[in-house]
This record gives sequence, structure tokens and C-alpha cells, in this order.
Amino acid sequence: MLLVRSSDAKRLVLADRTGTLEAAARGDVAAGSCVRVAGRVEARGRLAITAVRDAAEDEYVLDDLLDGPRIPVERMEADLRELIATIQCDHLRALLDAVFGAGTETWELFREAPAAKRYHQAYRHGLLEHSLTVAQSVSAISATFGGVDRDVAVTGALLHDIGKLDAYTSDPLAIDMTDLGKLQGEIPLGYYRVRRLIEDLPGFPTDLAVAVLHIILSHHGQLEHGSPVVPCTREATLVHMIDNLGGKLGSFDRLEKELPDGSTWSGWDRVLGGGAWFGAAREAA
Amino acid sequence: MLLVRSSDAKRLVLADRTGTLEAAARGDVAAGSCVRVAGRVEARGRLAITAVRDAAEDEYVLDDLLDGPRIPVERMEADLRELIATIQCDHLRALLDAVFGAGTETWELFREAPAAKRYHQAYRHGLLEHSLTVAQSVSAISATFGGVDRDVAVTGALLHDIGKLDAYTSDPLAIDMTDLGKLQGEIPLGYYRVRRLIEDLPGFPTDLAVAVLHIILSHHGQLEHGSPVVPCTREATLVHMIDNLGGKLGSFDRLEKELPDGSTWSGWDRVLGGGAWFGAAREAA
Amino acid sequence: MLLVRSSDAKRLVLADRTGTLEAAARGDVAAGSCVRVAGRVEARGRLAITAVRDAAEDEYVLDDLLDGPRIPVERMEADLRELIATIQCDHLRALLDAVFGAGTETWELFREAPAAKRYHQAYRHGLLEHSLTVAQSVSAISATFGGVDRDVAVTGALLHDIGKLDAYTSDPLAIDMTDLGKLQGEIPLGYYRVRRLIEDLPGFPTDLAVAVLHIILSHHGQLEHGSPVVPCTREATLVHMIDNLGGKLGSFDRLEKELPDGSTWSGWDRVLGGGAWFGAAREAA
Amino acid sequence: MLLVRSSDAKRLVLADRTGTLEAAARGDVAAGSCVRVAGRVEARGRLAITAVRDAAEDEYVLDDLLDGPRIPVERMEADLRELIATIQCDHLRALLDAVFGAGTETWELFREAPAAKRYHQAYRHGLLEHSLTVAQSVSAISATFGGVDRDVAVTGALLHDIGKLDAYTSDPLAIDMTDLGKLQGEIPLGYYRVRRLIEDLPGFPTDLAVAVLHIILSHHGQLEHGSPVVPCTREATLVHMIDNLGGKLGSFDRLEKELPDGSTWSGWDRVLGGGAWFGAAREAA
Amino acid sequence: MLLVRSSDAKRLVLADRTGTLEAAARGDVAAGSCVRVAGRVEARGRLAITAVRDAAEDEYVLDDLLDGPRIPVERMEADLRELIATIQCDHLRALLDAVFGAGTETWELFREAPAAKRYHQAYRHGLLEHSLTVAQSVSAISATFGGVDRDVAVTGALLHDIGKLDAYTSDPLAIDMTDLGKLQGEIPLGYYRVRRLIEDLPGFPTDLAVAVLHIILSHHGQLEHGSPVVPCTREATLVHMIDNLGGKLGSFDRLEKELPDGSTWSGWDRVLGGGAWFGAAREAA
Amino acid sequence: MLLVRSSDAKRLVLADRTGTLEAAARGDVAAGSCVRVAGRVEARGRLAITAVRDAAEDEYVLDDLLDGPRIPVERMEADLRELIATIQCDHLRALLDAVFGAGTETWELFREAPAAKRYHQAYRHGLLEHSLTVAQSVSAISATFGGVDRDVAVTGALLHDIGKLDAYTSDPLAIDMTDLGKLQGEIPLGYYRVRRLIEDLPGFPTDLAVAVLHIILSHHGQLEHGSPVVPCTREATLVHMIDNLGGKLGSFDRLEKELPDGSTWSGWDRVLGGGAWFGAAREAA
Repeated sequence: MLLVRSSDAKRLVLADRTGTLEAAARGDVAAGSCVRVAGRVEARGRLAITAVRDAAEDEYVLDDLLDGPRIPVERMEADLRELIATIQCDHLRALLDAVFGAGTETWELFREAPAAKRYHQAYRHGLLEHSLTVAQSVSAISATFGGVDRDVAVTGALLHDIGKLDAYTSDPLAIDMTDLGKLQGEIPLGYYRVRRLIEDLPGFPTDLAVAVLHIILSHHGQLEHGSPVVPCTREATLVHMIDNLGGKLGSFDRLEKELPDGSTWSGWDRVLGGGAWFGAAREAA
Repeated sequence: MLLVRSSDAKRLVLADRTGTLEAAARGDVAAGSCVRVAGRVEARGRLAITAVRDAAEDEYVLDDLLDGPRIPVERMEADLRELIATIQCDHLRALLDAVFGAGTETWELFREAPAAKRYHQAYRHGLLEHSLTVAQSVSAISATFGGVDRDVAVTGALLHDIGKLDAYTSDPLAIDMTDLGKLQGEIPLGYYRVRRLIEDLPGFPTDLAVAVLHIILSHHGQLEHGSPVVPCTREATLVHMIDNLGGKLGSFDRLEKELPDGSTWSGWDRVLGGGAWFGAAREAA
Repeated sequence: MLLVRSSDAKRLVLADRTGTLEAAARGDVAAGSCVRVAGRVEARGRLAITAVRDAAEDEYVLDDLLDGPRIPVERMEADLRELIATIQCDHLRALLDAVFGAGTETWELFREAPAAKRYHQAYRHGLLEHSLTVAQSVSAISATFGGVDRDVAVTGALLHDIGKLDAYTSDPLAIDMTDLGKLQGEIPLGYYRVRRLIEDLPGFPTDLAVAVLHIILSHHGQLEHGSPVVPCTREATLVHMIDNLGGKLGSFDRLEKELPDGSTWSGWDRVLGGGAWFGAAREAA
Repeated sequence: MLLVRSSDAKRLVLADRTGTLEAAARGDVAAGSCVRVAGRVEARGRLAITAVRDAAEDEYVLDDLLDGPRIPVERMEADLRELIATIQCDHLRALLDAVFGAGTETWELFREAPAAKRYHQAYRHGLLEHSLTVAQSVSAISATFGGVDRDVAVTGALLHDIGKLDAYTSDPLAIDMTDLGKLQGEIPLGYYRVRRLIEDLPGFPTDLAVAVLHIILSHHGQLEHGSPVVPCTREATLVHMIDNLGGKLGSFDRLEKELPDGSTWSGWDRVLGGGAWFGAAREAA
Repeated sequence: MLLVRSSDAKRLVLADRTGTLEAAARGDVAAGSCVRVAGRVEARGRLAITAVRDAAEDEYVLDDLLDGPRIPVERMEADLRELIATIQCDHLRALLDAVFGAGTETWELFREAPAAKRYHQAYRHGLLEHSLTVAQSVSAISATFGGVDRDVAVTGALLHDIGKLDAYTSDPLAIDMTDLGKLQGEIPLGYYRVRRLIEDLPGFPTDLAVAVLHIILSHHGQLEHGSPVVPCTREATLVHMIDNLGGKLGSFDRLEKELPDGSTWSGWDRVLGGGAWFGAAREAA
Repeated sequence: MLLVRSSDAKRLVLADRTGTLEAAARGDVAAGSCVRVAGRVEARGRLAITAVRDAAEDEYVLDDLLDGPRIPVERMEADLRELIATIQCDHLRALLDAVFGAGTETWELFREAPAAKRYHQAYRHGLLEHSLTVAQSVSAISATFGGVDRDVAVTGALLHDIGKLDAYTSDPLAIDMTDLGKLQGEIPLGYYRVRRLIEDLPGFPTDLAVAVLHIILSHHGQLEHGSPVVPCTREATLVHMIDNLGGKLGSFDRLEKELPDGSTWSGWDRVLGGGAWFGAAREAA
């Protein structure tokens, strides 16, 4: 039983939770459907399909077919609440509650959302996984280097990708950018959402708002990557770099899952700017 | 009587409405002050100062010292209201009234604001002059090429730089970027302002809002120039290109004013990516 | 009845005047031929061909199959002559007559030529359409911004792409670059042609020649786009920017024609550096 | 009592441990000397010197004039030994002992060396401070993201800049690149040093050597930054990103020290690609 | 009888010594095998295969199928020894003997190795052909320009690509990068090999070593091309430029062999940054 | 007795044939004049001027003050005529005679012209020196690599920079770009000149003309360096690369002349993209 990840004129990509398989293109399967496939795996891990049919709804459990986070969502939610509880500043905690509070509309969306369309954590709960690991890392190293305001940095890390709620569809079978995402960009969308929320929080200090909003706006690090401003504070620099690191390590995870048996090198990858080598890791295991 | 445009360790730049003069650096004059100067003009139009003192307040009229638009501000205001009256769509006219309506706070600021810190129309009323000429040009050619929604394009042209109200200080003696301008960027600031205004306009169609906001967000044309998205509509493309054209032609105006007598070439200019040649123009005059 | 626009190992592109259709690659149809096709349109507007045969010569009228300008060629020719008549300077009018005069060899070629191989106005009369709309726009806004020599700018706008007469083949069924186009470039070819013509016009002022030739040489705007010099005059800047605008808006026209029914987004486009959105336009219609 | 950091035709830069001051250029002071200065601080924190003379050797303690790490060197050495003790793999610990073992020639050099000529930690013990904080951060977050071999990553982090021992002079008064540094590059120099050491360690596993050497070679992240290969492993990616982060945060430290009283913005900085803002931080303090 | 150069999901590339042919992809032939093919050549030189089978070992001589150098290997070896004999400096000749001396392990590898995986001289003896022609050209023009140390330049030219011995597999049927080549880069590998050899040559002058090693490290000319340092000496500049020239001319050779009959233009080529034109050359022949 | 090479607000550059000296800026000396100077050389080879006065015309011989070629002009002219005599093709020799024939206007200009304003061979006879050495090198290596048409390559090498006759002023005291050079570019100017000459040579084969003109147009190698087309033939590639090499080696010559005694490194150089090292060369001498 496999999920059809994509189906175009060039090839068919099939997947379940444990990995993906490529096959020759065919006209009779639609992206986003679940199919039962017979065939054999050929050289370079390519699947030669001998028969294929749509699966009936009672033949599969969707979560078994979809890729997902390493850690169960309940555990991630608990970790998130624990991290928020360590924030000392009342204003920032109030802002985080307005976004992540149990029962808020934002939280319902955030919990389910993917982190991307393709490159890393492109699956259900991916946004939560990505934001949480970035915030945990930021928290872990905020004391190693001097002068970092940990509360601001962790808050910015948790909120940096909030614009993806508007910029991506959340259907796990067909993650895509929305019209708003393409026409306004995830960064302005997140900036608007958080600035609008802060406007309604009484007594929120202006400088604190500026510090948090600057993290959201600058977190892509460079203008050519879609940030209208570059990071000008230690906290914004920290979140940008750890976000970037998280995205790259997430790409290693994805490439390792897609790696055919016996291979130690992935193909050229856009995020890494090269191939990924799993030679040493494998022998170490 | 001259205004001190800048005074640093390298040189002194003095100006009145008709042009600028450079002189050697001196420690006793402050940028933004008005001074009475004695001296002579040397080779390459450089001023050799023999005496200088601060001018008394009753010795000068500030507007005579400041650079300004080609056309009187009252005439530009009338042209603006005339152009707005040609907009057919009630929603867009309502939006423009909310921004440019006589008596609104936005209009008071917009009328006075400069268009930039340095490169073009860096003077009082400069933002009005720039926005108006861009909108007039957009209006003039919107019919030459097919498929352009003139109402949307003209509205976007008038609003495209509205974020400069927050991104620049308005003191004509010391135009500078604000902290907000540096930390959030003029494009997100303008986007927030207009989206927030539209939120309060009853029944404003979503697609119309998207079309106008997309013009503001994309008007720098490329990510590396600070637009978080590139132009995806004919109207956004039109406003971006004419805005760009207006900026470049404004640079020719500035360079021509600064040109020493007898020169036909300006120095290398960042906006133009080269020097400006005034050889043919002069002989034609 | 459809014209085979291209036929390679990947896909077949079929077109008539109203748009294009893609189909799977097949070995039995040649690019540039006219075919009669039976089949059905599938998902994403792709054509599934069930039968195809070459059309007989009496089965079709070529002009019905070819894409073409929005406005009839006779009307464009009249508009061109009208625009030339507004040029005040006798020398420039003489130059334009030498190029566009009825009966000259250049005019015969210019009237038929395409404006490009692929991106915009890649059809018969495309070069006339493109040059005319650029010149009309230049004329329309030359007064909005100060200091522009309208005669020089309009002349440069009409002549800027004249090198395409040598750089492209004119067969509307197989528009391609010539060896000269690839080995010498359309800009040097146009420069040579106009400079050589001016050499034979008695008393043509040197500065006027320099001003017009500079527009041709610099109209791609940047060295990396094939202009050996960047625009150094207001007129060259104006023609470059409006030429660029015309090319981008021409791409919107092409993308809209190719858009499958029901789609609001084109694919990524090299000229636009992104996708084109036709969502708002459609609902407005 | 101030140290002359640089003295050229443009300006004089004076410093002690707490910060730097600029003054007008003068011909009578040499870079690297200690001087006694009389004068007053003017606008923008610039020093107007009224008298200056060379200090006698008994008038100052060099360490009071030099910038240095936040943490005492003895404490950093203890932290380093503690971190090395956490490495599980005997081969890697042997390699680290060969480099950092008390009494080795490498350790004597490493303990004193600066991390850079100008941008960050350009002072005595700077290389130790930089390598240690990068390795501590790598250690702290190696468990947050999955699949990282902590031993390899921490070893690579400690060794990544080892080539600076050959590429920089160690005189704290005149940190500069050596001829070897300019002609061979710090990365090949470090690679040679470590590969040569490993050659002499009996039984060092090839794959482990490859994994560590790859971190050194790729730690600048991109070819255009001087790495002959890009990071292809999780560990190399991690070290590259945290090294980069450490360099940027080190620039914030330097810029904050140089910031004139009353300023909240530094000037444009090459490492950050923009200015640094200390507005929020100051008010928070 | 043809050698299968590559076989993937897109196409099959077949070759013998005289050139290459493309055909449609098929699943039953493996890259690196020799096959007997029946079929016909279609438009654009594409092969339509009607039958294909693996060739028996006694059906072909491998050297007839493989591309190779213009000049026999014995002649190239003699030319190399003759060139080395012209080196005046004993130390450099000793170094060259250590690398190219008959019977050394390095020479055995060097004589067989290809110069690249794809772009130029990607065949047996290709590295010898490339290094020799570069060194001969360097020798031929070292006197035309002043100030060049011919001995150093010729030595550097012969050794510049020595790292390819470690960076590429030598199997002429499947030239590929090794893990070491991908993880360490051919330039650091060559640098290590030569520096390690020099370490064992008694009395080798330091400056001479620095001059030769600098040529190896900088011969790609720019950081973004994988050189950790740029050429800082006349000799390094000379070797870099002639190496580059040799690579480009080698690409012309490859493109000419692949050119279908009747064509005068190759396709776009990555090395040349454009197409290659063989129009004039052919008519001249 | 020294020639004032440049005199601006920052510094004074003085020179004679053997090298250059910098001094502090002063207002009383004009660029291009000859002055008698008293003073002493300070640290870093900077001149501290104690007295300066304009030299009388009978106090100096201009050629002693000006930098110049390594080889006397008469010898270069003889070498040029000898090289031209080796061209086998009558058409190409006729073209070269039309340009370089004794008594032609072109030859009079060419013999005197500088090769550049600043970077290499920026002195009288510099264009002849540069063109001749490039052509000699092209001739020397045209047989090493296969497939090169030597006649075409050498002709192109001699003519490649011919546009500099129009693009630069020839006054050796004030080499500068002309208006034509800035507005049309040296490459189109050279292209026009040679194409116009060929037009008047009876029976000149079209393909030969195309091959030579392509060398002129493409010799800067890339669009961003001002060539409207990239090299598409072996001959154009060869001339481009050797021209480039000649320019870089010419920069080494200039930097070595400017090097203060005792220095082994030049400053950062735009042409080289780094500093030049003269350490090994000096010790070798």
C-alpha cells in the first residue's frame, strides 16, 4: 500500500512512512491517492510496476503512509508548553499564549501544519517539530555566547515561521503554497499576524515588539532569500542561523530516507548545494 | 547663504536650492545648519572657504536653501485629486480617500515627506512628487499595452511608497531612516498600514485587496532589492518598472544640479550603475 | 487543424492563433508542419492524441494557425507613420524615413519580422508591434518627467531592435537566430546598420548620431544582458526601461494564452522570474 | 594610556581593553606602540588629540590595553580539557591529545593565538575562546537534531581552525596573515597538519579520518568562502553553521565595544552585511 | 559495436572512438557494457534502435571503442621526458623524477588516468595529454612575457592536476569521482601529495616549495571554482590561464566529435558558456 | 624631476620611468605637469614633500619620466611586420596591411596609443606592445592544441583591441576614455572599424570576415565584461584567454614597479582579485 506523492509526465513517486520509491510515469494514477502496487525493485532502487489499483478506504490507515516527525506529537506539545513556561517576561509569555494557547485557533492550525512543501519536514506536525527544535537549540546555546536575551530569542524562534499558517495549505496529501503565500510571502504574512496580535495585548512594550517582529522579518537572513531586512540583533542572528541549520539537517533526514539500499551518496540537493554522504554514519551504526 | 548638507571627516557639502558645492572638511560647521560663507570656487567646482559663520535666523528663508520639486506643491495636490477622481472603482476610491483625504493624518505626513534619503527627490514634498509622477505615467500608458486594470495600477502607484512615512524622518534638514525603517523595512511597513486600513473598510473585496497589497510588496521587483515577492501581475510589473524609471530619471535631475560648470559627465552613480552624460542635452538647449 | 510548434523527445507543442496545447512526444510529426489531430483534453489541459495526420495545403489558412498581434498590421503601419510625423527634427525624420520609408528594403523586412524567438511577440509583425508600442509609451510619458528630448527618445525607441532584422530568420514557422545573430549579437548588428545609414545622410549632426546610437547600444540596460555600455542619458534610460516593460507585459500575454482553463497561475517564467497570476483579472472580467 | 591599533593616512585608531577611539591621522605615532594621549572627545565619539607621546615601558601593563576574551584563559583551558574528556572514541581522544595535550608544541601556540586579524576575537587567546565556544555549542545541540555523531562533531569543532596557527602571526600587537596564510590558505594548512598527525597515529580508522578532515576542509561552507568542498555530512554542516554563528556573534561583541556612547546603531559591518542595533539590549539592561 | 557511455531514465548514449550517438532510453542495457546494435540514424543524428544485444568479449577490442588522445601515449611519454630534461633547477627536476620517474607508483597511475569525468579529455591517458600540452604551452610563451620563472612554471604545469590521481577512479569504462575526491577535493589532495613528497626531498628550498605548492592550490583561479587561494605569482597566473584554455579547447574537441553531420553549431555547453561554431573551420578544411 | 600622475583631494601620485611614489595631497600641483620635488621617503615608501615647483621645459626629457614598454618601439614594429609576413591567407594579409601598413592613418595612431587608462601598459606604445605579445603567444601555442586556424587567430589577436584608437585619448600625459569610448564602448567601435574596412576589400570571403569580427566582439569573454557575445570558436577562445593573460601579467609588471623597497606583497589589485607576491622572484634574482 503506497501513497502517490507525485505523478507527472516524467515519473511517479510513491511513498509510505519509511521512505520513497520512484517508478516510470503512468497516466492512470493521481497524485494524493493511495494505491496497491505489485512489481519489483530494479537497479538503483527504481520500482518496475506490474500492476496497480486504487486502494479502498478500509485498506489503509493514512498515518502509516505519511512521513512524520521523529517524536510523537503529544510529546512535542508537552515539550513546547514546558519551554514556554521557562520564559521569564510576562509580556512575551502572554504573546506566546495568544498564539499557542490550547484551544486558540492558531494552535489548532499550528499543531497540524507542515513546515514546507518539499525540502524539510514536509509533513503533518512538521511546523511544530521544526519550530520546537529550533527554539530548543536556541535556548541551549543562548548562554554559551554572551549578550543574548534568551526570552526574546526563544520567543522569536517559536514564532519565526508562523506565516506558514497562511502561506501553505495544510492538507497532508497535497501540501502547496496558497495564493496568499505566493502573492504576499510567508514573512510579511507572519509579521502581520504577530503585529496585529500585539496591537491587542495591553501595555506590550514597543521595544519588545520591535525586537520580536525583527526576528520574524529577518529570519531568512538575506534579502535575496526573501527577508526584507537582514538580522541586526544577536537574537535575530541566532534564530536565523539555527533555523537555517535546522532546515539543512532536516534535508539530511529526508535524503537518508530516500537513499536506495547500498548507496552512500544522495544526489545533488538544492538545500545543501551538494550531495549528502552517509558512508561514515552507516559504518558507525 | 548656504545649507550644510553634510559635514564629515572627508568633506563639507553645501547647498542651496540651485545646486551643491563641495569644500574641504572643517570641524566648526554642523550638518543641518545654515551658514554664511566667503571663498572662491576652484578647479572642478570645489569651494575654497576663506571665512564661514552661522547664519542668524532672520538672515534666510529655509525654502530658498532647500532643494525641492519642479512643480509647486499646491499644483501637485490638485493634480493628485484630479487623478484620484478618475478612478472608477468605489472601493479603491474609498481606500485612496482614507489615505490622501484632506485632513487625514496620513495626508498631512505624505504631503511633506521626502522620497528618499539621498538618491532621488530627497527633499520636502519629494514623496508626493515621486508618487504622483509614477501614477500619472502608469495612467498614461495603461492603455498602450493590453490587459492592464488601470484602476488597480494607478491605486498601487499612488500607494506603493506609503511605508516611507514610517521608514524616514521627515525633518527636511536631516532626512534619515528611522529605527523602524531599518528594523522592519519600508515595504512591510507600507503593507501593514494599507492592509490595516482595508480591514476597516466595509465590504472591500478580497481579490482587490490582494491585488493592491501585491503591488506594494513587490514594487522593488526582486528579492535582493527588498521585495519579499516578485511582481506576478501586469499591474505590479507596471508599477515596479515605472517606479524604477522614476528613480533613475530623478537621479539624472540630481546629478545635473550637482554638475560643475563645463562638465558633461557626472561621476559614477550607484543608481545608474555608471556616469550620466549631459553633453547632447546641453548643446540642444 | 493545428500547427506543430515544437516536437522533441519530451513533448509535442501544438498551437493555433488562440492558444497552445501540449501532448506526449511522438516520432511522426515534424515541427513547423500543420496537422489534423483527433483526441481529448485531459487533466491540466494536456492533449491525449488518438489520431494525427498531416493536413493538406488546401485544408487551412496559415494566418488562422499562427499567433499574431492584437492590432491589424495596416492599423499599426498607419500608427507608425503618424508617430514619425510628430518628430520635429528634420535629421531624425530623414533617418526614420531611410529605415521605415514605404518601399525601402528595411521596411519590407521590418513589417514582417518577429520580435523574438520565444519570449514575447514571437510571431509575424511582432517586431513592428513591439517597437511601436514602446515608442508610443515613450512618447506618452516623455513630458511627465523633466528633461527628456522627446524626438531622440522616440527615434531611439523605434530603432532600438533594428538589429533583429539580421539576427533572426523571418520564417514565421521557424523563427530562429541566424549565424550572424549568434556570432555578432543583435545589438552590434543594429548599431552597424544605423551608423552606416547615418554615414550616408548629409549633414547629420555628430551629437545627434551619438545620442541615437547610444540608445541602441545600451538598450539592454546592463552588460550582462548584452549591452556593451549602460544607459548614460535620460533618453537611453527611458527606452531601456519601457522596452523591458514591453517585454514583460508581452510575456503576460503569451502566458495567458497558454494558460489551461481553470488555472490562475502560469508556471515559472524566465522573463518574469516567477509565475504570473491571472486570478484577479479573470474575476474582474 | 592607549595602544595604537592602526595608524594610516586616513585616521588613527586607539584602544584599551574597554573599547576603541578614532582620531585624526598623524605622522608621529606608529601602529603597535603604546602612547600617552591628552585631548577631548568630540561629537560622534571622535578624539581630538592635543598632545601625544610614547609611553615608557614601566608606565603600562600590556594586558590592560589589549582586548581579550570574556572568560579567563585558565578557566577556558579547564573547560577544554573537560570537554575533551567527554569524547567516547579512543582514536579521536588520541588525536585531540596530540594537538591539545599539555606540553605539546601545538597547544603552546593554540593557547596564545588570535582567532582573526580583525573581525572577531582578534586578540590573544581568541582562537581558544572561539574554538571552545563553537565546540560547546555543537555539543549542546548535537542531541536536539537526530543522527549527529557527537564525537566526530565536537572533535571537528575543536580542530576546524587549527590552520590559523600557520596562517596568522601570533604577536598580539600586530596580528597579520603570514606568507603561508596568503599563499596556501588556512584551510589547506589545517588539513595538512591534521592529516599528517593522523598518519602517525597507529590504527586510526580511515573513515574516521575522512569524517574529521572533511569538517576542516568544508567549514567555510561554500567554495567562494575558501572551502574547496561543501559540507556533505551532518557533522560538517553543524560545525560550519555554528562556526559562522560564533563569528557573527563575535562581531556583535566587537561592535558593541566600539559603539560611541549614546549610539544604538553601529556602522555597516562586512560580517553582518548591515548595521548592528543595540537599542533594545541597552534599555533592557 | 558500441560502448554504452550512459544509460538512464532519459536516454542512452552510445559511443566508439570516432564519436557518440544518442538513442531513446531502454531498460536492458547497462552503462559501461559493449553492445551490438541494429537500427537507423534519424533526424538530428538520433539513433532509432531496432535490436540490441551484449557483445561477446572476443567481438571487440576495447581501445577501438574508447575515445583517446590525438597523439600516441609513447610519443607523449617521450615528449614529457624531453620537457623535464630542460628544467635547469636540480631540486625541481628531483621533484619531477619523484612523481614521473619511470617505475614510480605515481607514474604508473598518471600515465593511465583520465583528465576529467566528462568535460575534456575524459579518457585513458587524458591526464597525461592535458598536463603535457599545458606545460608545453607554458614553456612556449614563458619568454614572451617578462619576469616568468620558466622552471617553476613548467614544474607547476606538470603537477597542477596531480590530485586527480586520488580524486578520480581510473577505470576507463566508468570514470567517476572517488569518495576522497568528493569529500576532500582534488586540489587539497594534490597539495598534500606534493608537499608530502617535498618533505622527503633533502634540502628542498622553502621558497621553491611555496612557489610550486601555490601553483597547485591556486590553479582553478578563483575561490568559487574550488581554489582556496587565488594566483598571486606570475607563474601561478600563467598555469591557471593555460590550464583553463586547455580545458576549453578540449571541450571544442569533444563537441566536434559529438556534432551530428550537417550541423555547424553544438548545443549550449557548460564549459564554454555558450555553443561552439564549426562553420568556418569546416569550410576551410 | 617627476611627472604628476594624479592629484586629487586624497593624494598625489608622482612618477618617473622607474616607478611611482605617493605623497600627501596638495592644492598647488596639477595632474599631467612635471615638477621638481624636494623631500624624503618615509615609512611604506611614502614621500614627505618639503618643496615643490613646476619644472621648466628645458629641464627634462618627457620620455625619461614616462613609463614605457620593455622593448624599443622600432624593434616591436619590426617584430610586427615579421609576424604579419607569416600569415598565409592573402585576404587576411590585405586586411592587416589596411590597418598596419606603414603610412596608413591607422598605423600612425596605433603605434602611439596606450593599451589602457590604468591597469596594464597604460603608456605610449602600450597598445602595440600588448597586441604584439598577445599575437606572438597565440602564434606560439596555436600548434600545441589541435584544430586552431593560426592565420585567423593571429589576425584576430593583432586587431582585437583596435577600438581603443577611438575609445582612448592618446595624450601620454592624460590617458582617458573619450566620449565615444564611454557612450559606444571599445568593442563596438573596433567592430565597426574593421567591418567597414572589410566592406571595401574586394572579394573578402564572408566566413573569414565573420570569423575575424567574432574574435573582436567576443574577446572580453563574457557579457558582463562588455562582450556582446561569448567566444564560440577555438580562435576566439584562444585570443580571449591570451589577452586576459597578457593583461594580468602586465598588472604584475605595474605592481612590481610600484612596490616599495623591502616589500614582497603588493596591495589588493582589481585585475588580479588579490595581492601579488614578489617574494620568490626577488630571492631568485
